[in-house]
Amino acid sequence: MNDNKNTSLRPILPEPTLRRLPWYLAYVKMLDNQQVEYVSSTQISKELNVDASQIAKDLSFLNIKGKTRIGYEVKTLVKELVDFLGFKKKHNAVVIGAGSLGGALMQDVGLAQYGLNIVAGFDVSSDLIGSNICGVPIYDIGELAQRQKEYNVSIAILTVPVEHSQEAADMAIKAGIKAIWNFTPFRIKAPANIVIANTSIYAHLAIIYNRMLNHL
Amino acid sequence: MNDNKNTSLRPILPEPTLRRLPWYLAYVKMLDNQQVEYVSSTQISKELNVDASQIAKDLSFLNIKGKTRIGYEVKTLVKELVDFLGFKKKHNAVVIGAGSLGGALMQDVGLAQYGLNIVAGFDVSSDLIGSNICGVPIYDIGELAQRQKEYNVSIAILTVPVEHSQEAADMAIKAGIKAIWNFTPFRIKAPANIVIANTSIYAHLAIIYNRMLNHL
Repeated sequence: MNDNKNTSLRPILPEPTLRRLPWYLAYVKMLDNQQVEYVSSTQISKELNVDASQIAKDLSFLNIKGKTRIGYEVKTLVKELVDFLGFKKKHNAVVIGAGSLGGALMQDVGLAQYGLNIVAGFDVSSDLIGSNICGVPIYDIGELAQRQKEYNVSIAILTVPVEHSQEAADMAIKAGIKAIWNFTPFRIKAPANIVIANTSIYAHLAIIYNRMLNHL
Repeated sequence: MNDNKNTSLRPILPEPTLRRLPWYLAYVKMLDNQQVEYVSSTQISKELNVDASQIAKDLSFLNIKGKTRIGYEVKTLVKELVDFLGFKKKHNAVVIGAGSLGGALMQDVGLAQYGLNIVAGFDVSSDLIGSNICGVPIYDIGELAQRQKEYNVSIAILTVPVEHSQEAADMAIKAGIKAIWNFTPFRIKAPANIVIANTSIYAHLAIIYNRMLNHL
């Protein structure tokens, strides 16, 4: 693992690039819906308020070339971005903590459109174990390792109460999961070969509330 | 609005501080559950991998003083953080786009625990208008301005399809909303006095997928 023998893998993308690429995708998808055929980095730049040279640099990671004076073909750009971002491949995932937020994510069909295939949920509550949410079965957390193998799961979505975050993450890692999408505000500790992505949606509320106080 | 006459308001917090404070809260809440009475910035530092002097600086914005050699009183720190982050106040919000993700957020009771009170949803679909999700009524998007006044709404949660993001944001702003919590990957344009917070959860998937490729 992780031993720098990744010559066959693509270069490590800077995180800011990875954050901007989905913005470009959202914009060019919209252009495609409007039957626009070509788009230049200058045009994307004006719309998204990102430097045009930065956009050209970000897009240089993709297998696409813009034409002088015309720009990028919109349909091709959409396709290349979708492929590049991994939204077309199916990634098996489980939800750990099938409570309110976990259950809500299991009901969001949008995730499937972005390549996330939620195959199972796990919980400790006997009310939830054995039931299903939108057809996704809920198992006892003790079955995590066994089900990981059965479903070939690579991603664990962590939506447990904050005091159980590290414990649940440890179980997921031990079960052979490669990435943890952490929706708790807790900073998970994990070995370097485990991918951790933090989406503390409640923490974003603090930013909104605070900024509103300053904008009164 | 926004005319720098905010001498009575608190200082504008750096965004990185605002992002870290909820981590501290998550951690000290856990300590409180474990009946721990005092915590030092050194201890928080070790646990969360943030520089101890940075933690002391972040916490200096709060109305709390640590004691030499003992640190902060856990219960007081929890209370001060909850207050400071605005999680105790009730902030009225509406969901614009009551589809899959919007509906899921309306079902997440966690948001209410962090001070977000979702009072209504809006959509264009006649299947949804007139119905309710977990008791929250869904109205026609055309009623947004009227309902904003009725419910005194300050925050709009944007979960519409990406091609309608800007249009929906414009309607919300015109209706008198002060902050937009944007769950679409589209970069919303808005006047400077409107608070915009972006939570593109699907974009986080791109980061996970890409990092997993590099960790094979």
